[in-house]
Amino acid sequence: MRAPVVVLAGGTGGAKLARGMLDVVGAEDLVVVTNTGDDIEIYGAYVSPDPDLVTFWLADRIDERGWGLAGDTFAVMDGLRELGGEVWFNLGDRDLAIGIERARALRAGARLTDAVSAIGRALGVRACVLPMSDGPVRTRVLAHGRWWPFQEFMIACGGRGPVEGVDFRGARAAAPTPEVLAAIATARAIVVGPSNPVVSIGPILALKGIRAAIAGSDAPVVAVSPLVGGEVLKGPTAAFMQWAGRPLCSDGIAACYGGLIDGLVADSRTAVLPTLETDVLMDTATARRQVAAETLRFALALG
Amino acid sequence: MRAPVVVLAGGTGGAKLARGMLDVVGAEDLVVVTNTGDDIEIYGAYVSPDPDLVTFWLADRIDERGWGLAGDTFAVMDGLRELGGEVWFNLGDRDLAIGIERARALRAGARLTDAVSAIGRALGVRACVLPMSDGPVRTRVLAHGRWWPFQEFMIACGGRGPVEGVDFRGARAAAPTPEVLAAIATARAIVVGPSNPVVSIGPILALKGIRAAIAGSDAPVVAVSPLVGGEVLKGPTAAFMQWAGRPLCSDGIAACYGGLIDGLVADSRTAVLPTLETDVLMDTATARRQVAAETLRFALALG
Repeated sequence: MRAPVVVLAGGTGGAKLARGMLDVVGAEDLVVVTNTGDDIEIYGAYVSPDPDLVTFWLADRIDERGWGLAGDTFAVMDGLRELGGEVWFNLGDRDLAIGIERARALRAGARLTDAVSAIGRALGVRACVLPMSDGPVRTRVLAHGRWWPFQEFMIACGGRGPVEGVDFRGARAAAPTPEVLAAIATARAIVVGPSNPVVSIGPILALKGIRAAIAGSDAPVVAVSPLVGGEVLKGPTAAFMQWAGRPLCSDGIAACYGGLIDGLVADSRTAVLPTLETDVLMDTATARRQVAAETLRFALALG
Repeated sequence: MRAPVVVLAGGTGGAKLARGMLDVVGAEDLVVVTNTGDDIEIYGAYVSPDPDLVTFWLADRIDERGWGLAGDTFAVMDGLRELGGEVWFNLGDRDLAIGIERARALRAGARLTDAVSAIGRALGVRACVLPMSDGPVRTRVLAHGRWWPFQEFMIACGGRGPVEGVDFRGARAAAPTPEVLAAIATARAIVVGPSNPVVSIGPILALKGIRAAIAGSDAPVVAVSPLVGGEVLKGPTAAFMQWAGRPLCSDGIAACYGGLIDGLVADSRTAVLPTLETDVLMDTATARRQVAAETLRFALALG
């Protein structure tokens, strides 16, 4: 691997940027560091939503619905419903197989890094998808009077705030993996993907020592804003930005990453940082490739 | 429940007899005590092959292949294969859902009895299907130079002997459930189903105190032979009978249950016990009903 381009990714936004970056730099030179704060053990499986979302995007296997594998069936969930079981977390059959296989590997002593990597290889992904840590980190959200595990907040509360608290349980004790640290140390550019700054990128940045590692890297660091026309395309970013006291605009995004990034890619500028003003909507393969290419060019020019 | 008819069952033979008995005595009066020595925790699920087989038969949901649910799909197994995982134990998607739901219930503190019963109710079974014990019993087989968990012996070795040893790990410590003991104590008749005497019925009879409970019941006890025309219809009964030193004939079956049963239903007689000589092949619903009716009549006449 030459000096890789490292993308920090949460869910869909980061995954789309990673897919575009794959076209731009090729699989050998792409490392995606993914949030594991949303991981959940359910149905006897270990489900890792963000690493899987990135993997499915890079494998061109993402379903049109925006999550899960294209063309997946839902027989097990139907079966659980027939049994009167609680099916608040919907998972396709092949998606479940991935979680079952990962749980088996972890029980057998594998690191999460190796389990995620094996799944990527099996799906034909040659780029490197890394969980941020092999240690457990679990995002919890305080809302409507109680703390919710992240997936329950998203599904049971529909991701609706007001958010009164956010906790990345385990993050301070969890170290980034050696692979993550090596990628950051040798990176040609580090790109914070357009995922939720608070609950998608936040857990990655909460890991012990990762801010110092990013600061210590020679690579330029840029973030791509998740805002399009001042709005959030997907997910509960607004409620979390409000909790964090950040305005829903380029200034707010820049403030989330204060001291960490050298520039921002967004569709409106901020006064506090160099900005690449461009259309960050990534609704087609061409757009994803273009945003990735422009972002990388912008980052390298800052380096 | 009036004094119930209690059927001890392992796999297919016992399940077919139970299905016939359901027609004869009705759901309210039928209790099936099932072997749990074949249970296996796999794919994050708790799979209970014999209780499920009986449940599927009683629900008229058994698939033509002889196991699993009719019309089930196998998407999760296909997914595991794509991931390069080991898929030596084949399980349909809805079958897996049953094992996932049971594992969830057990983790939540339910007894196996309650978990099995809930699954039966969900599938519309009104007869009472009981696991023999809530404690863990695991059948292991010594063959080809090593001890195999039962399912691995059946699948990896194709159930082929010679069998050099059989162990019901945990059986001496595992008690029959209160429900099993109550059913036996109040039974109108106790019928040992035509399952493998050594590894299907054997684990039930190895439970602490169950032989005394059967002996202490006022009910007549009869066994239905699994041999049809001196041959075993299904499964590895011959290898296990050979290991046990029992001939593959009515005398051998009677010897397996020596001191326990008052009579034998078989297609050839034995000198050691009252025999109901009849065709025990249960390949149609009519035949199943007829064998069940004749068996019950024979048992009650012995009582």
